[in-house]
Amino acid sequence: MRTISWRDGELLTIDQSSLPSELRWLRLRNSSSVISAIETMKIRGAPVIGVAAAYALALEADHLWKGSRDQLLKRLERTASLLKKVRPTGRNLSYAVDRVIERVQRGRNLDEAKLLTIKEAQRIAGEEITIGRRLTEKAQTLVRDGDTILTHCNSGELATVQYGTALGAIIRAWKRRKRFSVIATETRPLLQGARLTAWELKRAGVPFRLITDSMVGYVLSQKMVNKVMVGADRVWGDGTVANKIGTLTIAITANQFKVPFYVVAPISSFDFEGKPDSKIIEQRDPDEVLTIFGRRMTPRRIEALNPAFDITPARYISAIATEYGIIRPPFREALKQLRRNHVRERRERTKQL
Amino acid sequence: MRTISWRDGELLTIDQSSLPSELRWLRLRNSSSVISAIETMKIRGAPVIGVAAAYALALEADHLWKGSRDQLLKRLERTASLLKKVRPTGRNLSYAVDRVIERVQRGRNLDEAKLLTIKEAQRIAGEEITIGRRLTEKAQTLVRDGDTILTHCNSGELATVQYGTALGAIIRAWKRRKRFSVIATETRPLLQGARLTAWELKRAGVPFRLITDSMVGYVLSQKMVNKVMVGADRVWGDGTVANKIGTLTIAITANQFKVPFYVVAPISSFDFEGKPDSKIIEQRDPDEVLTIFGRRMTPRRIEALNPAFDITPARYISAIATEYGIIRPPFREALKQLRRNHVRERRERTKQL
Repeated sequence: MRTISWRDGELLTIDQSSLPSELRWLRLRNSSSVISAIETMKIRGAPVIGVAAAYALALEADHLWKGSRDQLLKRLERTASLLKKVRPTGRNLSYAVDRVIERVQRGRNLDEAKLLTIKEAQRIAGEEITIGRRLTEKAQTLVRDGDTILTHCNSGELATVQYGTALGAIIRAWKRRKRFSVIATETRPLLQGARLTAWELKRAGVPFRLITDSMVGYVLSQKMVNKVMVGADRVWGDGTVANKIGTLTIAITANQFKVPFYVVAPISSFDFEGKPDSKIIEQRDPDEVLTIFGRRMTPRRIEALNPAFDITPARYISAIATEYGIIRPPFREALKQLRRNHVRERRERTKQL
Repeated sequence: MRTISWRDGELLTIDQSSLPSELRWLRLRNSSSVISAIETMKIRGAPVIGVAAAYALALEADHLWKGSRDQLLKRLERTASLLKKVRPTGRNLSYAVDRVIERVQRGRNLDEAKLLTIKEAQRIAGEEITIGRRLTEKAQTLVRDGDTILTHCNSGELATVQYGTALGAIIRAWKRRKRFSVIATETRPLLQGARLTAWELKRAGVPFRLITDSMVGYVLSQKMVNKVMVGADRVWGDGTVANKIGTLTIAITANQFKVPFYVVAPISSFDFEGKPDSKIIEQRDPDEVLTIFGRRMTPRRIEALNPAFDITPARYISAIATEYGIIRPPFREALKQLRRNHVRERRERTKQL
């Protein structure tokens, strides 16, 4: 299932907030409705957010009928900067937006620049599919018959254009007739595990059980889990990973019980330039913690924290699966090599255009 | 506030399931309604469950108008065994029930045995108040000005007859004009943190912020917490602690960040005879995980785990506060000494009766 696409000048994507009760499709006609869909997590998951942001720029370009190439560029840059502010933690958003902006600059007039915007957005989406297939193919080798795999949040096809990352690899392994089971955390506050991962696992026929986030220590201490697999919103060059809030606690606990902790992420989630920094963590509305389904479960007028992500140091990570293969510690050298391969491949691809 | 008492042959207690939206009192007239209130967690918290169980036996005795002392004893023993099965993890329940049964055996006829049942239940409740005062007085010395204390589930006055354990010590420190703040976990699945701890902290005027259970790693890694304080449902002789699901994950994570992890529990929660065993962990209805406020948030017909407790090894615990003082590792020797003091004190008290 392709979760996001460009159709007749509109962005067509799944409304992830209405699952699992309803599979509803959104038609978004301008960049501000894409921004609002990302903000409210109707569109969520680092890789699909990246593609949605690229399409937001394409919508912006598509709607500009008059004006110059420079005016288009100015509008796109403004939209790009708005997009980056919406959800700053995930790497894919800025990766995709920067690629589109860079590409558009080659347009010599308005029509050429418009075309380049839309083409680059579609190219990014297309690449994500190829990458998703390669990534889940490499990562599914981590899954063995008889495993019980703990996963957190949702890193399935819903989080990407197609195929998924960690959950995608799990489901691919199942389709390869490997036989195992999954334990999925509900992932408070927004319950992506209970709503989305459960929905994908059930559709794929993979046996699984749901737990609250607080049960991670229990299932690990009871040896009910022999492997953890999660996605990533950003992977830094030293192997440090930003991912959904709760990942750090799981990584530390898995580490204590000597259970391997695997991260599955495409290169579009990698940040080779930056350094791990908790300032990048998005702080969301406290009401997401204080309420469930719009119903308040706490006394009135109290405070809550709502960091959407946490940062897991590389020392708790056993391996990182990418579309280029599986990287094991020490990560720094391996990731440098990976970056070189990736830059070379991208350069060759750009030459062909 | 006294949360549970014996009034005119009835058990009067707070319905903890209706908080924080409503402070409702329950009047329970027979042992089966006490059992059902414990089962549905209208009555919850290891120390108050112990007292409620003792009162359940008192209700049973109070209602027996005809018959022999032996018939009473048989009925009490049957009820005791039902009570123990309802919530097997917490130590206080079996402690209280065993004490009543032992005491009643000294009655030489029905009237004497009935009186002894009621008196022993009331004595246990009265003792818990004295113990609660002593316990929170000792444990509040762990709190310092400027602290930010992480706590889990509810271990306040609601969980006891009065005064509380860990949260009780925190609130007592606040009343002593120590100035600090608290971070409280919401404690899925039944949200005792979001509902009950938030309610108690707000009433007491202690500044606090709520987090989801998944945010524990975040607040610890960001050095937003310098101390953890939790209650216990059972403490074994080697310092191993059974407590609300999620405690183990918090203890391991606190340990990684070198943040002290304190347990606060009265001797009635101690199990000196038994050995740590995960078979004692109560497995509750999966629907508590699959739904919130009766609303299903997952796809239909999926499975969930719902262990209500987990077991934290002594090596993650920095100190255990009891009504006799604060015990630090190595726990085994210190707890043996504690047991001797306790047995001596109990023997002297029994002689006085």
